[in-house]
Amino acid sequence: MDTTEFRRRGKEMVDLIADYLENIEQRTVYPDVEPGYLRSLIPEEAPEDPDTYEDVVKDIERVIMPGAASPACTELETVMMDWLGKMLKLPEDFIAGTHGQGGGVIQGTASEATLVALLAARCRAVRMILASDPQRPETGITSKLVAYSSDQAHCSVERAGMIAGVRMKKIPTDQSDKYAVQGETLRRMIQEDKAAGLIPFYFCATLGTTPSCAFDHITELGPICNAEKIWMHIDAAYAGSSFICPEFRPLLNGIEFADSFNFNAHKWLLVNFDCSTMWVKKRSDLIGAFKMDPLYLKHDHQESGRYFCTDNSLFRSLKMWFVFRMYGLKGLQDYIRKHVELAKEFESLVRADQRFEISADVVLGLVCFRLKGSNEVNETLLKRINNGRKIHLVPCLLSGQFVLRFALCARTTESRHIREAWRLITQLAEEVMQELPH
Amino acid sequence: MDTTEFRRRGKEMVDLIADYLENIEQRTVYPDVEPGYLRSLIPEEAPEDPDTYEDVVKDIERVIMPGAASPACTELETVMMDWLGKMLKLPEDFIAGTHGQGGGVIQGTASEATLVALLAARCRAVRMILASDPQRPETGITSKLVAYSSDQAHCSVERAGMIAGVRMKKIPTDQSDKYAVQGETLRRMIQEDKAAGLIPFYFCATLGTTPSCAFDHITELGPICNAEKIWMHIDAAYAGSSFICPEFRPLLNGIEFADSFNFNAHKWLLVNFDCSTMWVKKRSDLIGAFKMDPLYLKHDHQESGRYFCTDNSLFRSLKMWFVFRMYGLKGLQDYIRKHVELAKEFESLVRADQRFEISADVVLGLVCFRLKGSNEVNETLLKRINNGRKIHLVPCLLSGQFVLRFALCARTTESRHIREAWRLITQLAEEVMQELPH
Repeated sequence: MDTTEFRRRGKEMVDLIADYLENIEQRTVYPDVEPGYLRSLIPEEAPEDPDTYEDVVKDIERVIMPGAASPACTELETVMMDWLGKMLKLPEDFIAGTHGQGGGVIQGTASEATLVALLAARCRAVRMILASDPQRPETGITSKLVAYSSDQAHCSVERAGMIAGVRMKKIPTDQSDKYAVQGETLRRMIQEDKAAGLIPFYFCATLGTTPSCAFDHITELGPICNAEKIWMHIDAAYAGSSFICPEFRPLLNGIEFADSFNFNAHKWLLVNFDCSTMWVKKRSDLIGAFKMDPLYLKHDHQESGRYFCTDNSLFRSLKMWFVFRMYGLKGLQDYIRKHVELAKEFESLVRADQRFEISADVVLGLVCFRLKGSNEVNETLLKRINNGRKIHLVPCLLSGQFVLRFALCARTTESRHIREAWRLITQLAEEVMQELPH
Repeated sequence: MDTTEFRRRGKEMVDLIADYLENIEQRTVYPDVEPGYLRSLIPEEAPEDPDTYEDVVKDIERVIMPGAASPACTELETVMMDWLGKMLKLPEDFIAGTHGQGGGVIQGTASEATLVALLAARCRAVRMILASDPQRPETGITSKLVAYSSDQAHCSVERAGMIAGVRMKKIPTDQSDKYAVQGETLRRMIQEDKAAGLIPFYFCATLGTTPSCAFDHITELGPICNAEKIWMHIDAAYAGSSFICPEFRPLLNGIEFADSFNFNAHKWLLVNFDCSTMWVKKRSDLIGAFKMDPLYLKHDHQESGRYFCTDNSLFRSLKMWFVFRMYGLKGLQDYIRKHVELAKEFESLVRADQRFEISADVVLGLVCFRLKGSNEVNETLLKRINNGRKIHLVPCLLSGQFVLRFALCARTTESRHIREAWRLITQLAEEVMQELPH
């Protein structure tokens, strides 16, 4: 939608809201629908090609209004998570509208999803142990639990461990592994920890790490976790969106071993913040870990166990519904591919300049690069780039080297922006190299 | 703002956004301001009387755009929390723009605030104990911690205990106490638990409980917590908004003993969901409990310790800024008072009908009432009311009695709605009483 159409549609939407407010007393305060009413009103999958805006807006009255905020909010969330799960070709276990026991739920951020999965895993582990040893005190169990993640994992994984009050160990990676966790390393740590009397219960794998977009080897790691009854959560916060393209979907192979999986649709799938999409293989693992049932939350349909939803007022699934229909699957794939192409274009520019080097494989829309030379010269270059306020780069450390990260993330980025950015970077690099001794 | 003005202003806002998008390349990608730039650009307190809409919109370009999302988002949040804190006449300790060490931060819900306070309290308790006994294992400490709340507290308090993995005890209340926690009861439980080797560390007081809007006696409870180094968090999720009126502010007396305080501005202060406002007496208690500092989160100003903010993309403080200025303090007070008056009007209608009784003091906008008679007759009445879909009531149990709760919560509610609701309720009550034996 260009800005001309946005002006028109935005103003129509203002009128729609005003009409709703003016006529609100004609509506009932409580919906007259049965749970499950929504699924049959809309297609089972996202459209390949865009729907028209008129059709999308008409469906607000047809599909949403009869179910008001509840249950429409929960149901649309469940169905949109199925749409997206199908775009990602997730195993049926993760799709709610099947015979499986899983489904999707929207969180605010990937950090929240990591924590929610960790808490559910903690609850499952404690229950499993209590089932075989009912006399064992619960605090004695949690004090022995141990969770794992890559040393490249986002800091929120470590924080989740702090919040849940469990031991969290970082699995070492290095340049020879392309900064990805290997099965053998995890297996060794598990054996050592079990020998020391600890209870391994949770592994957070990362697909697309923050520093360098590295991919843990989940096809190796998954079977180890399954055999050891360790909950495997997959955090694909950034990279997850790309899995809707067949050519990137192999990066998700091994998902069948996971207990939960999450990525940020708000990061690279054109859905506005916040919308962090999470799937679990067993809904009851999540529901059971947080269940409370005071009288003021009771309702007639809560025993169905089919629905769960974190979001009863934000109605974040509406954003997904609009975006999926306005772009269609093909439009979303085009968007992902364009960013990856632009990243490859930037990579070529870097590789063509002998003063620079590429620091990690360019798989998606992130290019890790640096000036050949000291960390100091790269830190100075970064400072100079960001002080210019024309482009903004966030650095990382890889094997002790200070690395610049060029990340594609804006909807309107074009090739001319890439070339202009590179022109600026090389110009500043020249200045820095003249000033600083090599 | 009526719907006619909403149509006009909404469309102006659509154009403002479209203009911004069309001209985005003329803006720098990173702001050129120093931390603290924002406070001096706006008044120190909310206006008494409404500002004009034109002035509010003009300030977006003058105040927000120079600071882009960051630091403008964090700074506006800090200043808006000060505005609101001053409306509530919070002690200076809780206001960031003073010499104190406290300040406010926006959370999504009161449940989140309860959990955040509990985690900060757990961290403080563990550190205090480790400071005097560095050899003690941390898991040995957490397994002895005990937190308290009223048996009337919202279920999210209990859930916070589950998440944090600490023991949570409910303090009994009864009808003779008006369902409020008394100092003596808490003192006795603390002594018993300490004698049993436990470590009391957290008390969540409720001002305005969910079932009956009861108020724990924080002037008694606060000094006990302070003497025992127990973190006192005050959850005033619903009632908190009313404290901006001088006549309701005494309900908050005792706040000076609290470590943290929270209420939902999205519940009764005309700010749209989500916006749950939380203050702490020591910012460092929160920052220290969750601190992580990987390279990709580093920035030049993080050591100031002056700013903390949960919300870097939602920019929830903008909603507060607009609402406070469009209503002015007087407008917001009028809104609260109108709801309380309408609740009193409903209470009079109930009291004038001998078949009904009032089940708890009507202090704010909630009326707890029931038919004199069995729980069964009241459950039937509730079902009949809600099935009518004209009004919607949520029940509670008070001392084993099934009670109906009439809650004022819509912006546009008028006296005619109260009278119409009562007409409906009495009509259905007659039907139910004819059908069911007494």
